[in-house]
Amino acid sequence: MVDSLENNPPHQVVIVGGGFGGLYAAKALAKTNVKVTLIDKRNFHLFQPLLYQVATGTLSPADISSPLRSVLSKSKNTKVLLGEVNDIDPEAQQVILDDKVVPYDTLIVATGAKHSYFGKDNWEEFAPGLKTVEDAIEMRRRIFTAFEAAEQETDLEKRRALLTFVVVGGGPTGVELAGAIAELAYQTLKEDFRDIDTGEAKVLLLEGMDRILPPFAPELSQVAAASLEKLGVVVQTKTLVTNIENDVVTLKQGDEVKEIASKTILWAAGVKASAMGKVLTERTGAECDRAGRVIVESDLSIQGYDNIFVVGDLANFSHQNGKPLPGVAPVAKQEGEYVATLIQKRLQGHTLPQFNYIDRGSMAMIGQNSAVVDLGFIKLKGFFAWLAWLVIHIYFLIEFDNKLVVMIQWAWNYITRNRGARLITGQEVSLEKRTVNSSSHYQTTEKRLPVNV
Amino acid sequence: MVDSLENNPPHQVVIVGGGFGGLYAAKALAKTNVKVTLIDKRNFHLFQPLLYQVATGTLSPADISSPLRSVLSKSKNTKVLLGEVNDIDPEAQQVILDDKVVPYDTLIVATGAKHSYFGKDNWEEFAPGLKTVEDAIEMRRRIFTAFEAAEQETDLEKRRALLTFVVVGGGPTGVELAGAIAELAYQTLKEDFRDIDTGEAKVLLLEGMDRILPPFAPELSQVAAASLEKLGVVVQTKTLVTNIENDVVTLKQGDEVKEIASKTILWAAGVKASAMGKVLTERTGAECDRAGRVIVESDLSIQGYDNIFVVGDLANFSHQNGKPLPGVAPVAKQEGEYVATLIQKRLQGHTLPQFNYIDRGSMAMIGQNSAVVDLGFIKLKGFFAWLAWLVIHIYFLIEFDNKLVVMIQWAWNYITRNRGARLITGQEVSLEKRTVNSSSHYQTTEKRLPVNV
Repeated sequence: MVDSLENNPPHQVVIVGGGFGGLYAAKALAKTNVKVTLIDKRNFHLFQPLLYQVATGTLSPADISSPLRSVLSKSKNTKVLLGEVNDIDPEAQQVILDDKVVPYDTLIVATGAKHSYFGKDNWEEFAPGLKTVEDAIEMRRRIFTAFEAAEQETDLEKRRALLTFVVVGGGPTGVELAGAIAELAYQTLKEDFRDIDTGEAKVLLLEGMDRILPPFAPELSQVAAASLEKLGVVVQTKTLVTNIENDVVTLKQGDEVKEIASKTILWAAGVKASAMGKVLTERTGAECDRAGRVIVESDLSIQGYDNIFVVGDLANFSHQNGKPLPGVAPVAKQEGEYVATLIQKRLQGHTLPQFNYIDRGSMAMIGQNSAVVDLGFIKLKGFFAWLAWLVIHIYFLIEFDNKLVVMIQWAWNYITRNRGARLITGQEVSLEKRTVNSSSHYQTTEKRLPVNV
Repeated sequence: MVDSLENNPPHQVVIVGGGFGGLYAAKALAKTNVKVTLIDKRNFHLFQPLLYQVATGTLSPADISSPLRSVLSKSKNTKVLLGEVNDIDPEAQQVILDDKVVPYDTLIVATGAKHSYFGKDNWEEFAPGLKTVEDAIEMRRRIFTAFEAAEQETDLEKRRALLTFVVVGGGPTGVELAGAIAELAYQTLKEDFRDIDTGEAKVLLLEGMDRILPPFAPELSQVAAASLEKLGVVVQTKTLVTNIENDVVTLKQGDEVKEIASKTILWAAGVKASAMGKVLTERTGAECDRAGRVIVESDLSIQGYDNIFVVGDLANFSHQNGKPLPGVAPVAKQEGEYVATLIQKRLQGHTLPQFNYIDRGSMAMIGQNSAVVDLGFIKLKGFFAWLAWLVIHIYFLIEFDNKLVVMIQWAWNYITRNRGARLITGQEVSLEKRTVNSSSHYQTTEKRLPVNV
């Protein structure tokens, strides 16, 4: 299906999704002789690994976002299309949007993942996840509103629930969130309230496995847990969340069942494939795994369709060691670049050996001056790991956008321990709304009690 | 009513509103022997003069916001209360919130103004104003979505409406908005689209008076108009807006009536007092002016209540030259500081002469390297005015928050002509939604037309 004659009309590559997989594919195809259309429902690329810093008030959304058009401004063979792809027609070779269809010769689907509540979708209302800018703003709103409501709450039990923060899931996002919230409570906000001691806040990190950061080497998991505990986080492993409702988390630890009253429950536990996974499997007969990810061939194409590729979090690529590659930015980036190269090779009548992921390691930030970094051949912890984390993230962040300012802002926040971005925005502020969210049993009944000012 | 004995329980000052008036009053009362409660419905002070830079994608909301708690963190006599004051009881000396009352000895009301459509509230849907962070995000969404929709629009007339931006009101906000949009269309976005030439966009600035920037000296109005026109803005004075609906603005210029089709109409024309104005006049019998502002005594108190003060945009202070002082940040700041000093003087058994506003001039930015500055004794224009504008705004911005980063970001954007904050956020992106907003006659009827990629 891929056209190898150079004199034909230009080969049309359509990329769906402007995350790491899609954007790096587009960048690798810039200034080649194919035509590229990058379709995304947002007008910006989001640097998701730093989203937790927006959720905890250190960075602004724009600090970790790059307008797709400006990233691809100089790629004159590339067109950005704002829109949502609802369907594809692999026989007619076109993707279908609300009000138009776009034909392709080669299709790259990179629509990523969304959070998953393992079938308990009703938990989402009480325990939001962290995938989009709006998610981060909502988390930020909940976290800072909880402190505000606690300041005004005179009932001790209710106040305790307002000052209890539960993070579900001990992967990098959960670890980073819990560490940042602990720093907020025990350091940043310490002097800011008059009626509460934010130091009395409780930050819980819950993980089902026997250690946090399961993809890391066990000794780093241990270091991370110790660092978190030093910051004040209560780390609970082998802990299953069996229910979330009414601002109460129900846990199972071995045979013991516990209830924790918390007004701020944050979800960092599971992801599933985005809706395009289902569309692809229905339209092409491709198989998908339990998380909805599309099982791809060794060249990232779909079985039977050598001109449809799936990259990033949406793909299940298991040709390297039998296990699917993890849903992280470096995998998506390398996959996107591989497919871009393969397309060009094919147009020249050649091909490429199968995709091979080069794992440069994993890392997680724990608070503002500690991290764990697992590079395979070397394991870092503490300040040097933090520095490595910072340098690598900044490097990727400024790679296609001149976000030097972010680095300066970061340095500044680090020195001043300030969090200037702790705005409660997005909807009219109402502690009531927050407090009586659904049928909370913490509903305030007092009205117009004079407060001691 | 004000207590002058030092040994009594501390004198309670309640400040409603954390804008320039309220915040500077609170800061001036820090470390004195009164107790202060600052009540605001938002948890941050907003530097409103720069809100247009958020609306046009240069700055992030957090860049121009300072958490009230962190600004007042060191003022141990001061308590910040997140909440909305609905009513006051001047006899019982208390302000009334949703779920509590707060007693005061002295009350300072500084709740500011909101935009006014001169009774045509139905215009708001089509022509949003610019007062809050959410307003700015909504303006940003409309501006950048208009370019995105134009890129996909094949009907020339509809495309023209999408590329027509109308700013209603030629005061500083209107001038700054129009200048920034012109720079976006003619410079920043020039290389970013493939199917439209953003240089074909039209930016109109409409003003009812015979010149823009009416508070400035006439020669500066002329300079500003010329600078705007150089940027590409079409400035139309003596132009009355008689209707806004269906993405059409109806104008009256002399006897001529015109209709302009525009998908992005922005309101910078009028303000009226916030709701507390009505509460105050009802509860105290104070008079208000046509814009709802409370007419205050020469010491900024309310007639008959020497312990209730009104400062900032909510106050009509006409004791200086018979005309009310303008609703700008320096007036609010000086009023807040005056009242803070007066309270302390009274507690020492003294008083102060009447409030006297020291006008240090007005200024407006026109694009990224021009401005007009009217300091009374000297008038600046062009680059030096721009520099003065920048220095003065930065000075005020970093006065109580270390927003050095903002200056760096600005310098960076200035050098690179980049606007990294041009995110379309806040609600799920849908060009459809944008295009068929209410009963628009530009509704798209085509479905699934193949596009030329």
